[in-house]
Amino acid sequence: MFFASDNTGPAHPKVMEALIRANEGYATPYGDDDLMAALTSRIRALFEAPEAVVHMVATGTAANSLILATLAEPWQTIFCTPEAHIQEDECNAPEFFTGGAKLTLVESRYAKMRPEALARAIEAEETRGVHGPQRGPVSITNVTERGTLYSAAEIARIGEIAGKYGLPLHLDGARFANALVRLGCTPAELTWKAGVDAISFGGTKNGLLGAEAVIFFDPAHDWEFQPRRKRAGHLPSKNRYLAAQMLAHLEDDLWLQCARMANEAAARLARGLEQIETVSILFEPEANMIFATFPRAAHKRLHEAGAKYYVWEGSFEGDDPAEPLTARLVCDWSVTDENIARFLSVIRAS
Amino acid sequence: MFFASDNTGPAHPKVMEALIRANEGYATPYGDDDLMAALTSRIRALFEAPEAVVHMVATGTAANSLILATLAEPWQTIFCTPEAHIQEDECNAPEFFTGGAKLTLVESRYAKMRPEALARAIEAEETRGVHGPQRGPVSITNVTERGTLYSAAEIARIGEIAGKYGLPLHLDGARFANALVRLGCTPAELTWKAGVDAISFGGTKNGLLGAEAVIFFDPAHDWEFQPRRKRAGHLPSKNRYLAAQMLAHLEDDLWLQCARMANEAAARLARGLEQIETVSILFEPEANMIFATFPRAAHKRLHEAGAKYYVWEGSFEGDDPAEPLTARLVCDWSVTDENIARFLSVIRAS
Amino acid sequence: MFFASDNTGPAHPKVMEALIRANEGYATPYGDDDLMAALTSRIRALFEAPEAVVHMVATGTAANSLILATLAEPWQTIFCTPEAHIQEDECNAPEFFTGGAKLTLVESRYAKMRPEALARAIEAEETRGVHGPQRGPVSITNVTERGTLYSAAEIARIGEIAGKYGLPLHLDGARFANALVRLGCTPAELTWKAGVDAISFGGTKNGLLGAEAVIFFDPAHDWEFQPRRKRAGHLPSKNRYLAAQMLAHLEDDLWLQCARMANEAAARLARGLEQIETVSILFEPEANMIFATFPRAAHKRLHEAGAKYYVWEGSFEGDDPAEPLTARLVCDWSVTDENIARFLSVIRAS
Amino acid sequence: MFFASDNTGPAHPKVMEALIRANEGYATPYGDDDLMAALTSRIRALFEAPEAVVHMVATGTAANSLILATLAEPWQTIFCTPEAHIQEDECNAPEFFTGGAKLTLVESRYAKMRPEALARAIEAEETRGVHGPQRGPVSITNVTERGTLYSAAEIARIGEIAGKYGLPLHLDGARFANALVRLGCTPAELTWKAGVDAISFGGTKNGLLGAEAVIFFDPAHDWEFQPRRKRAGHLPSKNRYLAAQMLAHLEDDLWLQCARMANEAAARLARGLEQIETVSILFEPEANMIFATFPRAAHKRLHEAGAKYYVWEGSFEGDDPAEPLTARLVCDWSVTDENIARFLSVIRAS
Repeated sequence: MFFASDNTGPAHPKVMEALIRANEGYATPYGDDDLMAALTSRIRALFEAPEAVVHMVATGTAANSLILATLAEPWQTIFCTPEAHIQEDECNAPEFFTGGAKLTLVESRYAKMRPEALARAIEAEETRGVHGPQRGPVSITNVTERGTLYSAAEIARIGEIAGKYGLPLHLDGARFANALVRLGCTPAELTWKAGVDAISFGGTKNGLLGAEAVIFFDPAHDWEFQPRRKRAGHLPSKNRYLAAQMLAHLEDDLWLQCARMANEAAARLARGLEQIETVSILFEPEANMIFATFPRAAHKRLHEAGAKYYVWEGSFEGDDPAEPLTARLVCDWSVTDENIARFLSVIRAS
Repeated sequence: MFFASDNTGPAHPKVMEALIRANEGYATPYGDDDLMAALTSRIRALFEAPEAVVHMVATGTAANSLILATLAEPWQTIFCTPEAHIQEDECNAPEFFTGGAKLTLVESRYAKMRPEALARAIEAEETRGVHGPQRGPVSITNVTERGTLYSAAEIARIGEIAGKYGLPLHLDGARFANALVRLGCTPAELTWKAGVDAISFGGTKNGLLGAEAVIFFDPAHDWEFQPRRKRAGHLPSKNRYLAAQMLAHLEDDLWLQCARMANEAAARLARGLEQIETVSILFEPEANMIFATFPRAAHKRLHEAGAKYYVWEGSFEGDDPAEPLTARLVCDWSVTDENIARFLSVIRAS
Repeated sequence: MFFASDNTGPAHPKVMEALIRANEGYATPYGDDDLMAALTSRIRALFEAPEAVVHMVATGTAANSLILATLAEPWQTIFCTPEAHIQEDECNAPEFFTGGAKLTLVESRYAKMRPEALARAIEAEETRGVHGPQRGPVSITNVTERGTLYSAAEIARIGEIAGKYGLPLHLDGARFANALVRLGCTPAELTWKAGVDAISFGGTKNGLLGAEAVIFFDPAHDWEFQPRRKRAGHLPSKNRYLAAQMLAHLEDDLWLQCARMANEAAARLARGLEQIETVSILFEPEANMIFATFPRAAHKRLHEAGAKYYVWEGSFEGDDPAEPLTARLVCDWSVTDENIARFLSVIRAS
Repeated sequence: MFFASDNTGPAHPKVMEALIRANEGYATPYGDDDLMAALTSRIRALFEAPEAVVHMVATGTAANSLILATLAEPWQTIFCTPEAHIQEDECNAPEFFTGGAKLTLVESRYAKMRPEALARAIEAEETRGVHGPQRGPVSITNVTERGTLYSAAEIARIGEIAGKYGLPLHLDGARFANALVRLGCTPAELTWKAGVDAISFGGTKNGLLGAEAVIFFDPAHDWEFQPRRKRAGHLPSKNRYLAAQMLAHLEDDLWLQCARMANEAAARLARGLEQIETVSILFEPEANMIFATFPRAAHKRLHEAGAKYYVWEGSFEGDDPAEPLTARLVCDWSVTDENIARFLSVIRAS
């Protein structure tokens, strides 16, 4: 009953096998290895972007911050939602990597940036000459931090607004695969065709050990990214082990399978929860994340039974057993039917 | 008719005289001059704070940012209002000086931070372990950026909340004198007695050429402030000329006289505006700043007559002569009755 | 014939096995996993330091920079040698992570800091009040960047000088195991007993995939390190895979075996080179790194035969076949006798 | 007997008069004032550079650091001498403003950068790909920190080397006027005609209260400089008082007169010192700075008589009265013959 995040389960066995295979003989360090060359080709083909620049880093925070530092000047502001991972969960990493850029929080609905609010937020900047921050990149997340999705058209709408002001668009794609399999469109449609300039292409939350690709669709960003990555300690000397993970992922669509397994587990869990009278589900779950409200008593039972998940704004410890508390439940590829059935039965067991 | 800001008028003649007097013979550089020693004594007496640390810098942005960098860690967030000068008008200076701290915008009313919103905002941080920013200093402005005032009791309420969480409280006092003369309390009551740890004690907007004092009430901050100031290029070699300005200000309560002249000019201007049917005043003006809404046609006439002021969110250029636009009108010590009378007559002359 | 670095060979098979074992079921993310707890205990026992703080990061540059940023203030200077990895090979990472600290280059002999030069360099700072940088940490590397070693007594001499001025001492231990097995002393003797406050405890160059431990002997540094790591994107969500590598390393002294294999390979290579008339060896090789000078013609033959290594200050492409050029030759645990024999035979084959 | 620095004497009376004149009526803030427009024209004419960009800041450290931050990337290294003010006396300001660039110390003779050493230092960088810092701006000082001078030809030699590698050249001109009057060449010959891209054009050490101009010869740098200045708190709201000082300086060649007075005072002092047997002069003094060695006993007498100057590497307190100690003696425009005569007589009075 491990629903705390999609970074707590094991890596997919095929990824481990690929790691073993990669562990043979000599490999040029620092990204000049053969697996990285193969990965770059594979990603370019996948994204229909023959000039795309691809680099590996070990964490999503590194991917996001290094991209934003490459796209933003220190005197600019980055437009994102109040729920954005870069705002909420990176301990000021964007501010650190950019050398002091600001984040402007744009109104959102279920963690999705509202296009008209973005337009207003952009308009509100650069009205005070050199005194205010200057307009910088727009950053969105898909799947969002609340488990909702942007369609390709919705991203294109954001991209259009950013483009109107000449602002680059960054996509935090920590759960990009989960979005993709649900939306049924191509990687290109969800990125550069919709105006995305760079994506943090996540793997860690989708069955890898720890590997994220940074992809810039415009190769002009390549050089600046490289010293930024190096001086941040994010240039892996044994890059082959990162490339191998991601390459295994893309082989035979393993990444899409993993994402599908996670989404389907979440869907099954949601269907089960919906049938429990005391449970109400917030935000229609569209990928692998559910926000569900139910009484404290049920939370307590789950906790005692060993279930792992975050309680959103509140604590399962408290007096009133009937007080409704919201759980964030995230499924990864490894969640089993047994996990789900047991979780549901513990909630029900009142 | 110069109401653009209180930094566009001349310095007070007595300040110029003091500068001339200061320009005699040798003075130890970098703050070890006799005038600085005298100023420190004077400020300590004025604030009833015999251990206070006093340093001069040339701009308010420097004062604010150097104080905040001394009080905040790079992984913290600074709590301020959406209207705060540090948020709106310093081009990311706090982010730069702190090495990447974040600013959390706390709900305000007429630019005054709402205490209960501050408490909520503080509570909302440090809920995600090392992932979110950590709680940092609280920063408020008095007179606020909308011309409103915090009473000593209101500051004490903010100070109490900050203190409950062990967070330092910074006061942006660019217009501190204007607040003081209106509220009729002592400098100590408006600062350390209400929980303020450090103040940017402004002079430039109140009749100096360019001089702000940084005051820490706890001398423990003294050493860290000094290399921070030096490496930011804000240690004046000929410090005597900054100290002389501020000392002249405090002589015979010149600073309070200047603030009173500015506040009274604004009060006269407000009374005049109130009597014009097409004008409505936003935020009860309590110090030297007025926000007044009147039709575009009147703005156009003022502009053509050479009046200087900012139009708030909008432009006097536009088609509809009846559209109401808001002016920000700021008075300094040098505003004359003639200025005011003429301004009013141009608005009226429809 | 892969002597370019000790980061180009495969990871040790036992490390891969441990990774596979670690890939079971649920693990709390972000360092709260069971393997990390076990690793911390193991390292504390190994270093006879029951209060030591242990954290994992993925690269040596991250380990060095995060430690230095924790130990240094932005207005200080870090004392290191001109050959130090932090000076030469981290693209200004220490300057970035510290928020702008300086590096003062202390005279060295074969990349070993000269104690009397360190004392002079420290004395030369803090002579100009707040104008100059303030004295900060001392950082040394063992095995050094030229393959030489500090004995425990030599480190203690450096530690004594640093301690006299109250300055912390950092050890870049990317090749710490190689030093240890050669010197035959304990980890404690080479670190905290000699005055070392923090060590970048390397694994990547010694047979891991990519894992370095940060060790502070004083737990007071623990908290500050954590937000620094997070906001730099160096907090691994799936920390278990880093802990597992390092734990496998320390199991049955695998790390010492790997280091011994590397050192012995280098010793065999050096003995072979010494017997070749046209080769001269710089810096008595004490661990797994050799600097050897021989004619360009031999470099060309090696290059054509597929040998990989760096030519130090110069290029094997050039006209004069007799011109002596210096090779840096580094052995890792996986270097075989065949590799060495072939390398020697290609040099000899003139 | 005030020879501690050229920042301890009074401002020139004509500068004070200009300040008084500037203190009339309204002036647009933040550099859009009429005096600034006049100053820009004046400086463009003076430097024969009709497109030059001119901005005022209050300190030399601000001028140097803001220029270097505009010209350098954070992953680059700035080439300067070990004696450079930016290295020795700015408490890591260049590292702070640039976001972590490094300073590479280039061999010098009497604080003048050796061209061949510069070429070697540049060549030594960018040899390690993305691992080492990248080549950045070259920064020199004229008059140097040891009172020596670069001729126009010598600067051109440095400029040629920088230019060969496409690196910008910065001139720290805190004492530019002192160099100019001694060398008898034009401002253009000592700057852009010799390859200088930007100059910190000093006034504070030459009779102003505190005012330095930043001059970029290529207007392409204008925009980036402006948010950098603002977010560093160096955009003066009442810019007119800085512009007025500098404008007064350039009126009727007052700046050259002040510099000539300072240089001539130093020359008289040097001639007097040369005639004292126990005194030896280091570095042929070419401008307004002298380094002179004489016995401790004489230093003690001077100290007791109230003379102010720095003792270079050593202290006048100590046992051996015969031990030679070096004084740094700096003259400003206000040094009188009486000062000099008395200083010489105290040294002689053994």
